[in-house]
This record gives sequence, C-alpha cells and structure tokens, in this order.
Amino acid sequence: MDLEKYMEGHRARVDGALACLLPSSTKEPHKLHEAMRYSVFSGGKRFRPILALATCEAMEGECDNVLPLACAVEMIHAYSLIHDDLPAMDNDVLRRGQPTCHVAFGEALAILAGDALLAEAFRVLTDASLYPHAKPETLLRVAWDVALASGPLGMAGGQTADVQSTGQEVSLPLLEYIHVHKTGELIRATVLGAAKLSGAAPSQLEALSIYGKLMGLAFQIADDVLDVVGEPSLLGKEVLSDQRKGKLTYPLLLGIEESRGRAVDLVEQGIQSIHFLGPKAQRLRELARYIVDRQW
Amino acid sequence: MDLEKYMEGHRARVDGALACLLPSSTKEPHKLHEAMRYSVFSGGKRFRPILALATCEAMEGECDNVLPLACAVEMIHAYSLIHDDLPAMDNDVLRRGQPTCHVAFGEALAILAGDALLAEAFRVLTDASLYPHAKPETLLRVAWDVALASGPLGMAGGQTADVQSTGQEVSLPLLEYIHVHKTGELIRATVLGAAKLSGAAPSQLEALSIYGKLMGLAFQIADDVLDVVGEPSLLGKEVLSDQRKGKLTYPLLLGIEESRGRAVDLVEQGIQSIHFLGPKAQRLRELARYIVDRQW
Repeated sequence: MDLEKYMEGHRARVDGALACLLPSSTKEPHKLHEAMRYSVFSGGKRFRPILALATCEAMEGECDNVLPLACAVEMIHAYSLIHDDLPAMDNDVLRRGQPTCHVAFGEALAILAGDALLAEAFRVLTDASLYPHAKPETLLRVAWDVALASGPLGMAGGQTADVQSTGQEVSLPLLEYIHVHKTGELIRATVLGAAKLSGAAPSQLEALSIYGKLMGLAFQIADDVLDVVGEPSLLGKEVLSDQRKGKLTYPLLLGIEESRGRAVDLVEQGIQSIHFLGPKAQRLRELARYIVDRQW
Repeated sequence: MDLEKYMEGHRARVDGALACLLPSSTKEPHKLHEAMRYSVFSGGKRFRPILALATCEAMEGECDNVLPLACAVEMIHAYSLIHDDLPAMDNDVLRRGQPTCHVAFGEALAILAGDALLAEAFRVLTDASLYPHAKPETLLRVAWDVALASGPLGMAGGQTADVQSTGQEVSLPLLEYIHVHKTGELIRATVLGAAKLSGAAPSQLEALSIYGKLMGLAFQIADDVLDVVGEPSLLGKEVLSDQRKGKLTYPLLLGIEESRGRAVDLVEQGIQSIHFLGPKAQRLRELARYIVDRQW
C-alpha cells in the first residue's frame, strides 16, 4: 500500500475514534461541544496520531492500544491552534481554508473550547478503561510525558517565546527553542507514549525518543518553508502569513534552501536513529521523508 | 486550635508546596512563569487545598500524600480565574484587590499562563514520584476524576453556560447547572481524590462525594451573596460586580435571605452526610460552616 493510502486509512480510524471520544454536540452546552468538534474536524492532517499508530506497528503492537493516546494528542494540538489563532495571539482569521474558531464562535467560546480540549485530552489519557492492556504505571507515565510536553516547559513555553519574539531580532538558538518546545516535545511524547503502550524495550524507547525529537523539529522547519513556497489552496491559508506577522522563521534566518536542507538532514538523522528496528519500522521512515516532501 | 489558625497552617503548607511545584521564574520563559506565580500567589483562600487536607485527616491519612493533589487543584482554580477574567469573558480588571493577570501581563500571556497552569496541574497529578504511597491505579482514577470535573462536562461547560447566560432570563435549573459544573464538580473531585489517596473505604467515599458536591454548591451560593453584601476591602473587588455585569446569581433569583438560607441548608445536609465519620471529621464540619459564615 502506498503511503498516501496508508495515511488515509489511519486518518479515518483516528477520526472515528475522535468522534466517539469527544462529547456529543447534542449534550449541553451544545455550543461548546460544537466549537470543539468544529476545530478538531476541520481537515487536520492527523500527523501526530498517524505517527503514534505507525510507532505501534513498528513495535508490532495492536493499534487499538494507542488509539486513545493518538486522539488525546490530537485534541491538544487542536487546542493549541485555537488559542494560537486568538486575536491576542496571532490574530488569524483563516485556518485550513475555514474561519478560525473565534471567528466562527466568538472569542469567549474559542478560549473555552481550547481549555475544554486540553482537559478532555487528560480525561482520555487517564481513563484506564480505554487502555485495557496497559499497566496503570505505564499509562501514568505516558500521561505525565504528555503533560510535561504541553505545559510551561513544553508547548505553552514555546508559544510564549514565539509570541514574545515576534518582531524581535533573529537568533538561531531562540528559534530552535521555540520550535522544539512548541512542536517538538509533543511529537516526541506522542512517539514515546505510543512505544511505551506497545511494550517497547528500553533501547527501542531511546531510539524512538531521538526519532520523535528530530521529527518534531523537522516538521516545524518544513512548515516554515511551506509558509513561503507552499500552494495556498493546499495550505488553506495565504503564503507568507508568518513573515507578514513578523514571525521568526527558519527561511527568514537561513534562507529557503538552507532551511530545507536542515529539515532533510534532521529527517535522515531520525531515520538513522531507528535503523536497527528493521523492516517493521518502514512506515516511520516513510513518514519521516513525507515531512520534507509534503506540499501542505 | 481554632479554625482560622488551622486554616492558616494548612495555607502555609500548601503555599510552600506550590512554590516548589511551579516552574521557577528564573527559568525560561521567565514572563510565563512569573504570570503563573503572580496568579497563584495573589492571596487565594486555598479553600480547595484545605478541604483536601482536612479530608485526608478525616481518613486518618498522612497530609503529604494528598498535598500534590491539593496543589494541582489550586492550579486549576487559578487557571480558571485567569481565563474567566479575560476581556472576552468577564473583563475584570481587579481580583483580590490586585490587577488581574491580563492587566498585569497582557492578554496573550494571561491566556498562556492559564493554559500552562492547566497542563501543569496534570503533570503534578500524574507524577507517580510525588505520591510514593499511592497505587498507580488509584492515582490514575484521581487524575481522571479531576480531568472530568475540569473539562466540557465540568468546569469548562459551566463557564460556557455562565458566559452564555449573561443578560439572559433567569431560571433556577440553569443557575444550578452553572454552579454545579463551574465550581461544584471540581470541589467534589478534590474531596473524593483526597479520600481515595488516603485509603477511604467505599462507604466513606460515597458520603464524602455527597459532602463535596453540597460544599461546592453552597460555596458558590455564598460567593454570590457576598458579591451583594460583602465588604469590598475583604472581597478585593467592588460589591455588586456580578449584578452590574448582568450575571445570573442566586440573590438575583431568590433574594439575599433565601439564598443564604439555601446555602445554610446545603451545608447542614453536607454535615449530615458525613455524620458517621465521627470526631475525626470535625474539621470538615467546621469548614462546611465556615462557607456560610465567612466574610470573603
């Protein structure tokens, strides 16, 4: 099966699980649940969940064992996009070609939908009944990794540095700090969590942790590059939107070609780090290459 | 020891633990950690943490076993106040006599500080090393209870209904829905979590769950009443601030005397529900009465 079809299949599986896990829009308060679902089901790539499922396959695990983790991480990703788009942050009105959550539902509801998605992610992460084959101590550790990656020393810290750096002077260490914390840590926690829930051995965990970290950074650099050279109809937003906002990006700092080269290097390093996992990790390699080959 | 001194002692203990658990302001990004600490250490009553510690004492447990839970719940409380105060929500500029977080740090940082506190709460809830005497399955269940109480079917749902009801017609079931979800569920989860971490038996858990639920509702009614009759210097805000904002409150619906009577009834019911716990639950009874006797 080619990679696109493989991703499509996993995407459908994740979407089905998300639809079951999120509160129904028929429940009170309707508008909150609608806003949550609006943002979660707005055409996301599901890159993080697919990475979780591919990690599970590389460990020869059962996908069902990591599906709730995959959904929880996607909820956290959706929450972060809603809050990043707010007028007080990036003030974006379009996301994936659709009005952003605060444009569609108002600012108060957008803040609350983000908050609710973050809390809901931890409800899904800590619900032992969703992981019948996991040891409670493993599940706790996975939830802890995700919490650490989402909080002030992870995603919230990265987003703070991003907001504060807008319009500031460019420095490579700061840019790397932002990308690693804003995007990288959660991707690493996703891969690591999926591996733990699939019974990975310590040496495998170490390799996958390196792979996850490198994928996170490569993913964000590729995103920066696409903001400059991407096709608006595929991106669902205008090109150069980051640059117009005075955002610190890799292309701004290193130029497009060097940025692209850097992402390719990181991807190759990531692939190297899981070399010893053999053929069963083939999808993880393909997904790594996809990061730098994708058009959206 | 009188109740005030008892509360003071526990408050100091909780503050010490919070200071250790929250990321240091010397770490990057400084401003985020400053904003988190600013809001957490702004003179909160620490009612939820004290209730957790008193529950532990009623179960003859060791306070250290519930202290991280007590802190996590206080972080969630602080996050909810920061987001509730935002311009898009209640647009409050003063809280406990001090500028609200967004006034002191700007809106973007206030949103992020709230987000970070919520994630940090789950980091503290799922860190097994902080609860050396708890079984992992107990800890998972406690974290799950808190997540449920904080999310769309708990606090975030209650706050949504609150925001949506502002300026709308008054109805008692809606008001009760708001209070139970916005405040009650988290207080219940706090008491229940503390009881579980202290090895409570099923019959004790059931009684404490009822007690927690009733305390949550009584607490919020008392808050509504204080908004009308309280002393501004003790409240740290203007009186009638809810009413001016067109908020649905108990005094607006039932009048002050009937609201107060209702809170007293709930408190007495709560005390009844834990009658069989005997003298060791004395502080829980005193704290219940304190809810309706307090001036702030």
